[in-house]
Amino acid sequence: MEFTKMHGLGNDFVIVNGFGQSLPDDPGALARRVCDRRLGVGADGLVLLLPSAAADLRMRVFNPDGSEPEMCGNAIRCVALYARRRGLVAKTQLEVETLAGLIRPEILLDGDRETVRVDMGRPRLERAEIPMRGPAGPVVGEVLDAGERSFMVTAVSMGNPHCVVFGADLDDAGFRKYGPLLEVHPAFPARTNVEFVEVLSPGEVAVRVWERGVGPTPACGTGACAVAVAGVLTGRTARRVHVRLPGGVLLIEWPDDAGPVYMSGPAEEVFDGKWVRA
Amino acid sequence: MEFTKMHGLGNDFVIVNGFGQSLPDDPGALARRVCDRRLGVGADGLVLLLPSAAADLRMRVFNPDGSEPEMCGNAIRCVALYARRRGLVAKTQLEVETLAGLIRPEILLDGDRETVRVDMGRPRLERAEIPMRGPAGPVVGEVLDAGERSFMVTAVSMGNPHCVVFGADLDDAGFRKYGPLLEVHPAFPARTNVEFVEVLSPGEVAVRVWERGVGPTPACGTGACAVAVAGVLTGRTARRVHVRLPGGVLLIEWPDDAGPVYMSGPAEEVFDGKWVRA
Repeated sequence: MEFTKMHGLGNDFVIVNGFGQSLPDDPGALARRVCDRRLGVGADGLVLLLPSAAADLRMRVFNPDGSEPEMCGNAIRCVALYARRRGLVAKTQLEVETLAGLIRPEILLDGDRETVRVDMGRPRLERAEIPMRGPAGPVVGEVLDAGERSFMVTAVSMGNPHCVVFGADLDDAGFRKYGPLLEVHPAFPARTNVEFVEVLSPGEVAVRVWERGVGPTPACGTGACAVAVAGVLTGRTARRVHVRLPGGVLLIEWPDDAGPVYMSGPAEEVFDGKWVRA
Repeated sequence: MEFTKMHGLGNDFVIVNGFGQSLPDDPGALARRVCDRRLGVGADGLVLLLPSAAADLRMRVFNPDGSEPEMCGNAIRCVALYARRRGLVAKTQLEVETLAGLIRPEILLDGDRETVRVDMGRPRLERAEIPMRGPAGPVVGEVLDAGERSFMVTAVSMGNPHCVVFGADLDDAGFRKYGPLLEVHPAFPARTNVEFVEVLSPGEVAVRVWERGVGPTPACGTGACAVAVAGVLTGRTARRVHVRLPGGVLLIEWPDDAGPVYMSGPAEEVFDGKWVRA
């Protein structure tokens, strides 16, 4: 089985092209073996590219535990660049069928570097949609206690829950202490991702993401989108903001309150491989 | 640059064949990039195979930090199988030039499975050679305090220091507590690797290795050798013992007190790849 290893801001994937080679019957089982970082190829996910009747191609993502998430913002940037470079599509505006519906990544030339802009959908702000316990309405600048501290949080769902905290001024030990405390705060019945944000200017923020069920993560596409939305809602940032994450920078745009959030960022090929195990 | 990913009991390497392709000027810098598990191929080491005037081939190993260790018992098993399968050598008893001198791995057929037997050299038992502080003589069943516990330890150097503890009966939390305490015990001026051993029978032991500067490790060839030597010295095991490590089993033989220790174990190919980054 031939594959290409790619990453988007350090979130890494084994891309397998199903146009021209047969794919395994049980991709979840294959993902468990392929994603193992010592005994397999090593990745955050196995990504299959497949023909689609409804779009240019179909993307299926499998986690290292074999489960299949609806969508992955970092993976779809890799998929768009791969499909274009390998001639699976001739256009720069793609339609990709996913479990989250049709996603439309667009390949942009940023200087001599290709970036991919993805419509990440509309943010959901109603408390019950986060989901978060409490009275109806959006959650903007609300106080939550965690340990012996209080944090002002703004909650945004990008299909998954995000708890955005501005200006907490935490060192690494504080990040590792309060991230997990907020993740499991009783206000969030499905737990939550947590973003600690430092505003550098209205157009630039630095973010550390505590990912639900994972911990510190080099880059989180939906987290970057949630931060940009929270920045607009609280008057801290413009509608176009560069979000600095440990793995690199994403450009997030939220042109108007009623519309979708756009995420632009890079994807990189690392190596081509051929899986020789049975 | 073409490469093959292999592992020996989960200790994984990027093998680059220098017979037929040119190799980088600065392999340490390449190792830092290639060994990165998200932005590179991901491995515990980069291994270069090179022509040798003194032996069948020459092996150079580079750690993820770019440093070059003298030898690696798990890597040389991979190298022996690779060289034989790719036709770099026609024999089953190889001579490999390393920074630790000539090493002679031998490929054995164990059923339909190839294993590699490696002469790991003689153990050093004199206290100053471990190195360990205190009066002259070997260190067999000596008491060391760590935290609120005392451990009976036997010390063996296989070119690197090992502190072998039999029957401590630790759970995982205990292993993670006392491993690092013994690693930095003042008796060991160069720190030490620590092996906690459960004797299952005279021919079989289960071992967890706390590797100096690393922590828990799936397999440690010199650690397995040190355990077998300590088992003979304390009358707990035979001169031929299967050592169960988290990553798999090594067979260790120490035929006589004056001679070398032999380690036999598997090596596995995982995939072939082509590095596309500059």
